[in-house]
Amino acid sequence: MTPLSTRLTRSWNLRHPVLSAPMAFAAGGKLAAAVSRGGGLGLIGGGYGDPAWLEEQFEAAQGIPVGVGFITWSLRKSPSLLTDVLKHRPVAVMLSFGDPRPFVAEVRAAGARLICQCQNMEHVIDAVDVGADAVIAQGTEAGGHGALRGGFTFIPEAADYIRVNAPDTLLLAAGGIADGRGLAAALMLGADGVLMGTRLWASREALVNARHHEALIETDGDGTIRTRIADIARQIAWPTGFTARIRRNAFTNRWHGREDELERNVSVEGLRYRQAFADGDPENTGVWFGEAAGLIHSIEPAGTIVERTSAEALACLKRDA
Amino acid sequence: MTPLSTRLTRSWNLRHPVLSAPMAFAAGGKLAAAVSRGGGLGLIGGGYGDPAWLEEQFEAAQGIPVGVGFITWSLRKSPSLLTDVLKHRPVAVMLSFGDPRPFVAEVRAAGARLICQCQNMEHVIDAVDVGADAVIAQGTEAGGHGALRGGFTFIPEAADYIRVNAPDTLLLAAGGIADGRGLAAALMLGADGVLMGTRLWASREALVNARHHEALIETDGDGTIRTRIADIARQIAWPTGFTARIRRNAFTNRWHGREDELERNVSVEGLRYRQAFADGDPENTGVWFGEAAGLIHSIEPAGTIVERTSAEALACLKRDA
Repeated sequence: MTPLSTRLTRSWNLRHPVLSAPMAFAAGGKLAAAVSRGGGLGLIGGGYGDPAWLEEQFEAAQGIPVGVGFITWSLRKSPSLLTDVLKHRPVAVMLSFGDPRPFVAEVRAAGARLICQCQNMEHVIDAVDVGADAVIAQGTEAGGHGALRGGFTFIPEAADYIRVNAPDTLLLAAGGIADGRGLAAALMLGADGVLMGTRLWASREALVNARHHEALIETDGDGTIRTRIADIARQIAWPTGFTARIRRNAFTNRWHGREDELERNVSVEGLRYRQAFADGDPENTGVWFGEAAGLIHSIEPAGTIVERTSAEALACLKRDA
Repeated sequence: MTPLSTRLTRSWNLRHPVLSAPMAFAAGGKLAAAVSRGGGLGLIGGGYGDPAWLEEQFEAAQGIPVGVGFITWSLRKSPSLLTDVLKHRPVAVMLSFGDPRPFVAEVRAAGARLICQCQNMEHVIDAVDVGADAVIAQGTEAGGHGALRGGFTFIPEAADYIRVNAPDTLLLAAGGIADGRGLAAALMLGADGVLMGTRLWASREALVNARHHEALIETDGDGTIRTRIADIARQIAWPTGFTARIRRNAFTNRWHGREDELERNVSVEGLRYRQAFADGDPENTGVWFGEAAGLIHSIEPAGTIVERTSAEALACLKRDA
């Protein structure tokens, strides 16, 4: 079968139009390498700035071409992380959640592609303004951090803006894309490819506790919530406007809507959160997946997921045309 | 060109797989008839129960086959509305926002098709349980009332459930679908057709003030918000879990997040809201459209919108296959 060909596969020389999300803690070098080996492009999660961990993850990628993603506002606090990482010659650097401007020149100078993930049109306008090679329109369905625009409107609106203002810029869709149907839908809406998070969080190579994986399998798409409480418990000062989608569980039932009280009790509750996370407790901590949970029924190798997603998308497109 | 053929067009004998949303106040008989004449199926908005208005709207449809939609929890307060409306032999009755069970037998006995609009998987399970002819998966992108599931995950998850549990039931997608790209994406995700709200609110036949139409043209997809304040101001007691997406304006900037204070001042603020609505003021009242605003650049005849959406979808599907 002819593989699925898009502007992304042709210009970045990929077999499949699929990137993996640089999920903090979960997206290590093993996952990123598996996605790249599978024909997509894997991104290591830069997280909140642990240089030793990042070094280990680039080693774990064993020289397979991968990229890296940073939480932009966090990277501003320790910009040397970017300098260190660029020594590994990542294929691409993705920036999300904050103004990309302070880092553009350094990424360019290192010869890496610049990917800007966006949560609304204001971000898209900024990403085009800084000359991003690829813009990601991330819908609210996404697991982990994000905002409120839904993919159905955000992707085509971003596509319209890019077509007029930066026609060579690629557009990727993210948020709730877990199979070939989602990839095919994203292409219909004007994207050139997709970034998959939750579906690859649910892979064998992701750095995720087995009990958290089990919790995902048991959860349907109604079973997640966008909330500030995980960041409050972890005492990570995320900028206003961003929330994290996590599993609905005892932790969210207890604290969502009682943010002020959680802040007052954070010395105790923060420890409890971190201990439960370390233990793989699926109830008393953040379990970091999105609405795509309802479409995922097994933990599989990342390469299998990438290849099947692309083949399914092609089959969807052929069937309905 | 061969028209776009889906399970919906074949089994309901439509030229295009497009229904119009039964938007309270905006979706009168003229809009519904224009959509049906254009090859889709138009639905009159049953709203909050004004029998004289509903009579007028069925007259305005001039015998063109149309359907009707009700706000289910509101219909329970005045069930005779349904009995009255069924005398006009609507093609279909759509129920949304509440348990459909009290009305199923009467709809069936009148020979109308039963459409259940759903905002999460729990609703889908109920809709299949009552034997709906069509289930609508409405994403959070939608204008007006809705909930929080995004279309990208909700549509395929509903499709999977229906395929296993009620394979003859049709699935429609709603929420943020404003052109052929959205229709094509919905088909990729497993829908048999779509329900369009905001795009048809922005039609010549919709009962919408010209200044509210202008406000939509000027607004991009970031410029709406899901909130309870319009219902608080109007003193309409919507059940927990549902919010209304309206334009961000002076009214939402002032009151969103200050719901308790609005309730305390409702005798004054409610009058102000209603007067501003009647005047077509786009700033001091609810302006009822969704995230699709960013995809809409002109007010057009409803029939043109339906036909173009279908033709564009077909072109999208042919191009990418």
